[in-house]
Amino acid sequence: MMRICRRLLTSPLGDVDASGAPTSTFQARNQRDHVKIMLATDNHVGYMEKDPVRGQDSMNTFREVLELARDNDVDFILLGGDLFHENKPTRATLHGVMALLREYTLGDRPVSIELLSDPHDGSAEGYTFPAINYEDSNLNVAIPVFSIHGNHDDPQGVGYEGALSALDLLSVTGLVNYFGKVELPTSDATAGRSATNAGNPLTEDGIRIKPVLLQKGRTRIALYGMGNIKDERMHYELRANRVRMFRPAEEPHSWFNILAIHQNRAAHDPKAVVPETMFDDSVHLVVWGHEHEQLITPQPVAGKRYCISQPGSSVATSLCPGEAAEKKVAIIHIEERDYWLEEIPLKTVRPFIMHDIDLADELEDAGIEVEDKSGVTKLLKSRIYEMIEQAREDWMSKYEHLSEAERQAIKMPLPLIRLRVSYTRHELGNLVRFGQEFVDKIANPRDVLQFSKKKVMPKRGKEKDVNANDYIDPEEFRDMATAEKLEKVQVADLVREYLEAQELNFLNPYDLERAVTNFVDKDE
Amino acid sequence: MMRICRRLLTSPLGDVDASGAPTSTFQARNQRDHVKIMLATDNHVGYMEKDPVRGQDSMNTFREVLELARDNDVDFILLGGDLFHENKPTRATLHGVMALLREYTLGDRPVSIELLSDPHDGSAEGYTFPAINYEDSNLNVAIPVFSIHGNHDDPQGVGYEGALSALDLLSVTGLVNYFGKVELPTSDATAGRSATNAGNPLTEDGIRIKPVLLQKGRTRIALYGMGNIKDERMHYELRANRVRMFRPAEEPHSWFNILAIHQNRAAHDPKAVVPETMFDDSVHLVVWGHEHEQLITPQPVAGKRYCISQPGSSVATSLCPGEAAEKKVAIIHIEERDYWLEEIPLKTVRPFIMHDIDLADELEDAGIEVEDKSGVTKLLKSRIYEMIEQAREDWMSKYEHLSEAERQAIKMPLPLIRLRVSYTRHELGNLVRFGQEFVDKIANPRDVLQFSKKKVMPKRGKEKDVNANDYIDPEEFRDMATAEKLEKVQVADLVREYLEAQELNFLNPYDLERAVTNFVDKDE
Repeated sequence: MMRICRRLLTSPLGDVDASGAPTSTFQARNQRDHVKIMLATDNHVGYMEKDPVRGQDSMNTFREVLELARDNDVDFILLGGDLFHENKPTRATLHGVMALLREYTLGDRPVSIELLSDPHDGSAEGYTFPAINYEDSNLNVAIPVFSIHGNHDDPQGVGYEGALSALDLLSVTGLVNYFGKVELPTSDATAGRSATNAGNPLTEDGIRIKPVLLQKGRTRIALYGMGNIKDERMHYELRANRVRMFRPAEEPHSWFNILAIHQNRAAHDPKAVVPETMFDDSVHLVVWGHEHEQLITPQPVAGKRYCISQPGSSVATSLCPGEAAEKKVAIIHIEERDYWLEEIPLKTVRPFIMHDIDLADELEDAGIEVEDKSGVTKLLKSRIYEMIEQAREDWMSKYEHLSEAERQAIKMPLPLIRLRVSYTRHELGNLVRFGQEFVDKIANPRDVLQFSKKKVMPKRGKEKDVNANDYIDPEEFRDMATAEKLEKVQVADLVREYLEAQELNFLNPYDLERAVTNFVDKDE
Repeated sequence: MMRICRRLLTSPLGDVDASGAPTSTFQARNQRDHVKIMLATDNHVGYMEKDPVRGQDSMNTFREVLELARDNDVDFILLGGDLFHENKPTRATLHGVMALLREYTLGDRPVSIELLSDPHDGSAEGYTFPAINYEDSNLNVAIPVFSIHGNHDDPQGVGYEGALSALDLLSVTGLVNYFGKVELPTSDATAGRSATNAGNPLTEDGIRIKPVLLQKGRTRIALYGMGNIKDERMHYELRANRVRMFRPAEEPHSWFNILAIHQNRAAHDPKAVVPETMFDDSVHLVVWGHEHEQLITPQPVAGKRYCISQPGSSVATSLCPGEAAEKKVAIIHIEERDYWLEEIPLKTVRPFIMHDIDLADELEDAGIEVEDKSGVTKLLKSRIYEMIEQAREDWMSKYEHLSEAERQAIKMPLPLIRLRVSYTRHELGNLVRFGQEFVDKIANPRDVLQFSKKKVMPKRGKEKDVNANDYIDPEEFRDMATAEKLEKVQVADLVREYLEAQELNFLNPYDLERAVTNFVDKDE
């Protein structure tokens, strides 16, 4: 039976829904011990920034997250990685994020959460200012931001200051407290070491995670972070029991322990995923970044004490089902070791409606011949108009509490519409110009349709949907979630098949898969 | 007769040299009115950052400048452009500069220079924080830094926030007060406009410069800045009398007016240079960036009231005579409208010795035949050893005040040595491996020698040194000062000759030269 992942702090002031969950704000049991954390991840700021319609979506939603943090008077913000979409954000994106952070997170509001760990843990070497911004008496911080890095904004390069992430620029300017920076040997170093130790390149002592320790009243929070590393590596380290989480020496059981990670959760490949069950039993809440699907309500894990909250991205970076769920952030309310997640739907997120249709069935129902191009086009267009209407209804449903006059004034942004059309026997003609009709009606007229053709895969002997486009558009591919990419290319499978065919599977598949996944993840 | 460009504030406490100038610190006439400005320019941080020997030179010297500012308790720092060598500085360089600025310019020292102009002039649009960092109550600024941009770090790109410079990242994070950002139409806009007004693409109202107004006691300073624009454009605007400097309405004659610019000063091409005489008569001191030669002592300008101080770069980016002068910064001392420049030699700058020899003469003196490769090599090497020794003597001369034991402990950084060898009749053999002997003795073993062959230029009919290398090394070319580049390629001349030859000089040479100079300046 499913355990419910919440420990209700107090009765809600307002209504309770069918499951007994509060549907409006609730009161803290004890305000002095009550910690509020704004939780968000995968903001992907800079995503499609050159697109004239969607270019500002990610920035606008990041601004909304900061506004929510300020308006809800949270103690701090916790970000789960991929704040930036590009490893090297453009100057405009970096400038915009810096401006927003300065605007919303500096100010006179007193920070009431005390830092108990060393403020210089993780400081830039050779400088006297602390790593935790609100410990710097030269900065007037109102809302500290804590962030780990994701796979998009991970540290890269071997400068004289070591590998740096875009988050290091936010950290050195005192705008973000970048934690969970995993110091791993560079691939060069690993290669060098594996030359003398060919069987196992991972001779280091594993991964050690030191928490940021915070206290407010009687509530003590240990914030463990682990920025993204290769999933295979993380998988290996966890399986080999080489991940060590430092626990506070003083009253180790009095702490509420949060672990923020940014890794594959869905099992596209058994070795390129981090098993949900493998974290330390001392953890209370795992915040899982990287996966874009919104599963923010904490889920229990079989046989474990902790729950997992997967906030999902705050902007859709691929038009797939996982991104169609309503985008949310949450406020984690904590008192001592009880907590509650208050979920907050985001209002700036562009509506996204996705439908799948089977073309043959649809044509049969409508009595249209597949050769009747005009009839096929008309049918598909009518489906899209229905989806636009649905987007509008969904959007307006958020504003039911407003008066009719106020509702009239609300303008819905152009929606994202994706109609996936599967077909079997027939070839479809050129529908390139199809989207032009929707240029001022939807945000993605160029890729509103996606065709997939059912094929029998001879090698694997089972029927499977594959993308029927002549090629995978590199731009589209780049913007896909890793999950979607892997679904498309099945690279790990290909590598394994190749190795089997070549009878080469005595090679260490770890390195090969790492290289391949690196390619898939980073578009290198 | 040469007017002397200083207005002595008071008698020096220490010695006076032959010209009557003070050689040590001096006392302010009135401490309450006394303003001290640390003046530096062309720090070119990031220059050759990948070089294992010289990679940190520019960063180290920038740190020295900040240290000097702090140790001399200046009121603010004024930078004349090209703080960054690359328009898109690497993450390591950006991180390093941000860290240094945070380290040295934030702190509890009270800022005693009051801002009289609008603190929001030039603010990022849509945000509430001011453009002048010490007016932001969320930042504890000890030493404000004011900077214009140069040609290396000028605003580029057309993002949603308009063209941004790397300095905008320092400004938005509150580390630098970026002023003098000239808003010109983009080349696209100019092109669009010239289509309807083909005769003159410059139909705008010219350039308007609003000063930053500062006050301390009875001293009032108007800081006019003009970041780099194309020299031809600046030349045009000045000639056409289209540059307007706003003057404070209140007691306009009570201000000390400083103008910071970053343009060509040396006349490589009459239209690609800004004439020294063309500035407004209200200016007292022109701070001239861009030119790397240290001419920091203010020079009078014939027929003008103002003087020009050209601090020169704080790192040598080309091994030419202009860079061999001792590198200095200065403190501008101002009381009301009297001022004095206190020059400070930089200690971290790598020694640089440059000599020219005529090979034929040298060989004749030494009795060596030019065919005797071994003898030629030996001669050149001995010259280089002499230069290394000279570098050491120069370096140690700075430490004459120390005891012998202290002097023993001083380590000179590897010097930059450039021996320019001119020859006429004979071809020289391959000396590629020549530098290997100096790998641990000098900082630039690969390009210690530079050969030039005297040639008769048939077209222009006069003898002239040209570079005898088979090609101009792109890396070396990139690192040359514009002056040196123009000397080498003489592009403007070539364009003019080409136009004359084609009888095409009815075309507007302005646009062509601009395109060509753009190429030379930006390596596009």
